[in-house]
Amino acid sequence: MINKESRLAEVRQFLPEWLEYSRKEAASGEVASYIPELSKAPHDALGVHLLDVEGDSALAGDCGMSFTLQSISKVFTLILALMDNGESAVFERVGMEPTGDNFNSMLKLELVRPGIPFNPLINAGAITISSMIRGATPEEKSARILDFFRRLSGGSSLEVNEAVYQSEFATGNLNRSIAYFLVENGVLDGNIEEILSVYFRHCSIEATCRDLARMALVLAGDGTDPLTGEYLIPRRYVQIAKTFMITCGMYNASGEFAIKAGLPAKSGVSGGILAFVPGALGIGVVGPALNAKGNSSAGVHLIERLSQRMDWSLF
Amino acid sequence: MINKESRLAEVRQFLPEWLEYSRKEAASGEVASYIPELSKAPHDALGVHLLDVEGDSALAGDCGMSFTLQSISKVFTLILALMDNGESAVFERVGMEPTGDNFNSMLKLELVRPGIPFNPLINAGAITISSMIRGATPEEKSARILDFFRRLSGGSSLEVNEAVYQSEFATGNLNRSIAYFLVENGVLDGNIEEILSVYFRHCSIEATCRDLARMALVLAGDGTDPLTGEYLIPRRYVQIAKTFMITCGMYNASGEFAIKAGLPAKSGVSGGILAFVPGALGIGVVGPALNAKGNSSAGVHLIERLSQRMDWSLF
Amino acid sequence: MINKESRLAEVRQFLPEWLEYSRKEAASGEVASYIPELSKAPHDALGVHLLDVEGDSALAGDCGMSFTLQSISKVFTLILALMDNGESAVFERVGMEPTGDNFNSMLKLELVRPGIPFNPLINAGAITISSMIRGATPEEKSARILDFFRRLSGGSSLEVNEAVYQSEFATGNLNRSIAYFLVENGVLDGNIEEILSVYFRHCSIEATCRDLARMALVLAGDGTDPLTGEYLIPRRYVQIAKTFMITCGMYNASGEFAIKAGLPAKSGVSGGILAFVPGALGIGVVGPALNAKGNSSAGVHLIERLSQRMDWSLF
Amino acid sequence: MINKESRLAEVRQFLPEWLEYSRKEAASGEVASYIPELSKAPHDALGVHLLDVEGDSALAGDCGMSFTLQSISKVFTLILALMDNGESAVFERVGMEPTGDNFNSMLKLELVRPGIPFNPLINAGAITISSMIRGATPEEKSARILDFFRRLSGGSSLEVNEAVYQSEFATGNLNRSIAYFLVENGVLDGNIEEILSVYFRHCSIEATCRDLARMALVLAGDGTDPLTGEYLIPRRYVQIAKTFMITCGMYNASGEFAIKAGLPAKSGVSGGILAFVPGALGIGVVGPALNAKGNSSAGVHLIERLSQRMDWSLF
Repeated sequence: MINKESRLAEVRQFLPEWLEYSRKEAASGEVASYIPELSKAPHDALGVHLLDVEGDSALAGDCGMSFTLQSISKVFTLILALMDNGESAVFERVGMEPTGDNFNSMLKLELVRPGIPFNPLINAGAITISSMIRGATPEEKSARILDFFRRLSGGSSLEVNEAVYQSEFATGNLNRSIAYFLVENGVLDGNIEEILSVYFRHCSIEATCRDLARMALVLAGDGTDPLTGEYLIPRRYVQIAKTFMITCGMYNASGEFAIKAGLPAKSGVSGGILAFVPGALGIGVVGPALNAKGNSSAGVHLIERLSQRMDWSLF
Repeated sequence: MINKESRLAEVRQFLPEWLEYSRKEAASGEVASYIPELSKAPHDALGVHLLDVEGDSALAGDCGMSFTLQSISKVFTLILALMDNGESAVFERVGMEPTGDNFNSMLKLELVRPGIPFNPLINAGAITISSMIRGATPEEKSARILDFFRRLSGGSSLEVNEAVYQSEFATGNLNRSIAYFLVENGVLDGNIEEILSVYFRHCSIEATCRDLARMALVLAGDGTDPLTGEYLIPRRYVQIAKTFMITCGMYNASGEFAIKAGLPAKSGVSGGILAFVPGALGIGVVGPALNAKGNSSAGVHLIERLSQRMDWSLF
Repeated sequence: MINKESRLAEVRQFLPEWLEYSRKEAASGEVASYIPELSKAPHDALGVHLLDVEGDSALAGDCGMSFTLQSISKVFTLILALMDNGESAVFERVGMEPTGDNFNSMLKLELVRPGIPFNPLINAGAITISSMIRGATPEEKSARILDFFRRLSGGSSLEVNEAVYQSEFATGNLNRSIAYFLVENGVLDGNIEEILSVYFRHCSIEATCRDLARMALVLAGDGTDPLTGEYLIPRRYVQIAKTFMITCGMYNASGEFAIKAGLPAKSGVSGGILAFVPGALGIGVVGPALNAKGNSSAGVHLIERLSQRMDWSLF
Repeated sequence: MINKESRLAEVRQFLPEWLEYSRKEAASGEVASYIPELSKAPHDALGVHLLDVEGDSALAGDCGMSFTLQSISKVFTLILALMDNGESAVFERVGMEPTGDNFNSMLKLELVRPGIPFNPLINAGAITISSMIRGATPEEKSARILDFFRRLSGGSSLEVNEAVYQSEFATGNLNRSIAYFLVENGVLDGNIEEILSVYFRHCSIEATCRDLARMALVLAGDGTDPLTGEYLIPRRYVQIAKTFMITCGMYNASGEFAIKAGLPAKSGVSGGILAFVPGALGIGVVGPALNAKGNSSAGVHLIERLSQRMDWSLF
């Protein structure tokens, strides 16, 4: 583990001002609109919550806002699937490579043999991962995921936003298309609507910046919750998740984020970003206006600037 | 900088045995054959040289063998181009994203606007980078590159292998194709044959495992040579190079190598691999038989196993 | 209309010998095996039935064999959709261009905006066409299609092969994937399983070489059945179908078939080929062993050779 | 051969009015601007010249204008390469399939093994064809091509426009890129600059609508000049050229043109279109403003409308 001090006291001083500066970046972004529930999010909102291994916080902006995890959830379903199935079973069905394509592209599935998803953070990979969560029924799988997420967020009472879930399920035809493509390729089997219900459900879990920071803190602690001392995830699975967050966590802007911020992170189309400084700090950000690559415009700006100023980069 | 101990004394004990074990992996690989000079390399050779910040070494196998840097050189021409032009000028002409495609594919250039190379380590990016090295003539550019490489390798007398250079230049039609595509897209200008001569020349610089380890040690030292104390590269440019080595250093097996070894590394089709443990260790490996992704079969196996045993992963 | 004489008397003399010669081509082909029902077809079977505008026939080989229409049906559902909706409504939702890709590729859908199928004979296009057939229920649509096909084949009693239909429906996940992709792109709407049931059902209509020749004869007659004088299809829609058969009728070997045979034709994975000589002749062929492009190996060989000898090419 | 009457007397009556109507289509198009010489062409110009097998003409609009053949020349270099090398030698190096991609895309070259050009009318194919023209030197090859084109146009004095040629040669980097890609794939060999000089030179031959109509008339006559009775091209090679004109002659709008006009045709970026009615008529059109697919906006409109009115479609 890297020993970094969080120097949160220092951050606390300039955070409100920096947040307001980053908030301007929202102007160039657009709130996701493919379902009505997402499009209602306030365009210029920006909130950040930093939480260190001592339990100290620094926060600013619209931290009270709640939002759905969307793709951020993929990091933790990957971890749960690893815990349920082991490393080798998981990587028989998803690869380890960044793609350079949009997260929902089928290009690589079609062009590259044997047609397994490139990595567990693109939609094709994450749907496959959802199908590998242990549980006799989709309801049981979903319950296990929700329970796991609650433990990771310090015993919170996270819930699925049912309206978002219903909307996603009703309109998620590109994900259906991807899923049937995976069935055809022998990557996925079983009832597709059930698999997708598990997938859309974990994407629709609602959280706040503090919840993100709290979950990130467990990763920062290599799987052991720094605040409770509870062992929640084997260190090797945190290592795997952390590596994917560096190489594929920010869609096809992951390379740029690694150069500019150098932190493991995962974003979602709701505008959330979960990031962490290993050994030091969990970070939760929300800013609904997205840039062209699908990441929060203001959120990316804020994290990159903070990381540069505080020298948090892993590299 | 990460403080890792190299624990070289420990490594020294099992290194010869582990090297022999990894050497068997060569059986499944193939020596690059696109030019006669490369195809002459011994199929089952495997050498490794580890060099720590105290100047202590551990070595085993065919360390005496020399080979051309090939794509390994791209890391250091990137650094030199950054030193010559600054960060923003470089990233106007090359991107920061891994591609998931073969290093010599034009797919992404054609499909993605504005058609700049995805990153500086694929051929399209590295040729662009070669064109940005300062110098009035191609000869001067090549001389500056060679001089830089010599300083990085501790004042060595590295030389271009002229036979390899001539062969590459004569047969490098795919790189010509890529270069003219870049000209068409306004990324590259100037005399293409001259730009390619600079590019092929730095790919043809001949080195040993010790030279690789020595150059890697400067990166491990964040740009300052740990053995001489000499400041050779601004730390920020080492950080950039290091990040690219993680996300794109091992062709389209970079993601897998990051998961399994977790070290910044760069491979070449001659079978060389340069890697390092930040703050601790430079590593040079050669094993000419390549796997399907273009990396040394035995070399990858050896580094991954060493890194796992010694817990060297950055992640 | 082109005035060609069929010279069937001439053909009749050498047809049995030529058929046996072409039958050898089956050796290099493979019977489709994605559903058990197709894989049972006899590998070396080859049958041909030629029918001229006077009602004279020439036939040879395994003419008694029945087989499912598969993609051959797409020609006639296109015509029915044109009759049901008119030219402009149809071409708002499918394009007119050959693709050069496999019939079931999604590459072009993804890469080309606005994402409508390239033409009505690839799967994406044919599924869209199926959705445009008039009828209150899928059963009614299917009944109208079957009725249309029966009239085109001279009042035959064509039937759906239920076992083939059930198999196709159960295993057709690539087509499901394509269909949901089209829904996402706004090309297709409605109940996908119902649309696919119509599609798979017309692909599963069973016919003989004589049935194919009979249907082809109506096209040769520009939409009027030469044997009954009955007007069945507006000439313009025959012209459209005929043009697509030339440019896209033989999957991504259509260009080659146009050069070598020069006849409008459509093949199916059951090994059937329907072709015609405008103004003169309907042709039905079956040979289950398929070449790499998905067309009957022996069937293509026989038609090309016949067309060259008889100078039947349109060009 | 199809026996069509040209009914030129009828056409002559409405041609001027129809031309003016089609001329309006130019408004939505753009004149090619990649070289200055092309961009100088008058945006709203439109000329048409029809020539029948009796030598009668109908003409209207800006027929006096001369322009370079550009891609139109590819039809005739294909024919000359067939006459020089025979059918099988030519089709070892170029395919027979339409691609659905832009004429200058390398996508299919890269994605499809064995990497030969899809057809002789895309740039990759036409450059390969240029390399197959007999001649000891590029000058001799170019002279043979020019001589052939002069004979086809009734003993004209066609000349290369040197300014256009020089511009194309200087700026043709995408074609250079394609050519080196073909070298890498073993499709092309020899001196690339020399091959490209032959290619760019025949693209730069200057003609009028009458010249196009005259050359087209030889194709309409199946290779025998209807006006002189001179046998110029073997009928089989006209058949091959005619088929390619139908399947690939209008870039990736060939399918649509086949549906709407149904005539063998070839367009060029200068705005020229050569088309013909087999057995009846040669057609030359020029209209420099191009639509999104690269064909003359007004020219396509005029030919489609004429063909529909006169029922000239082959289909």
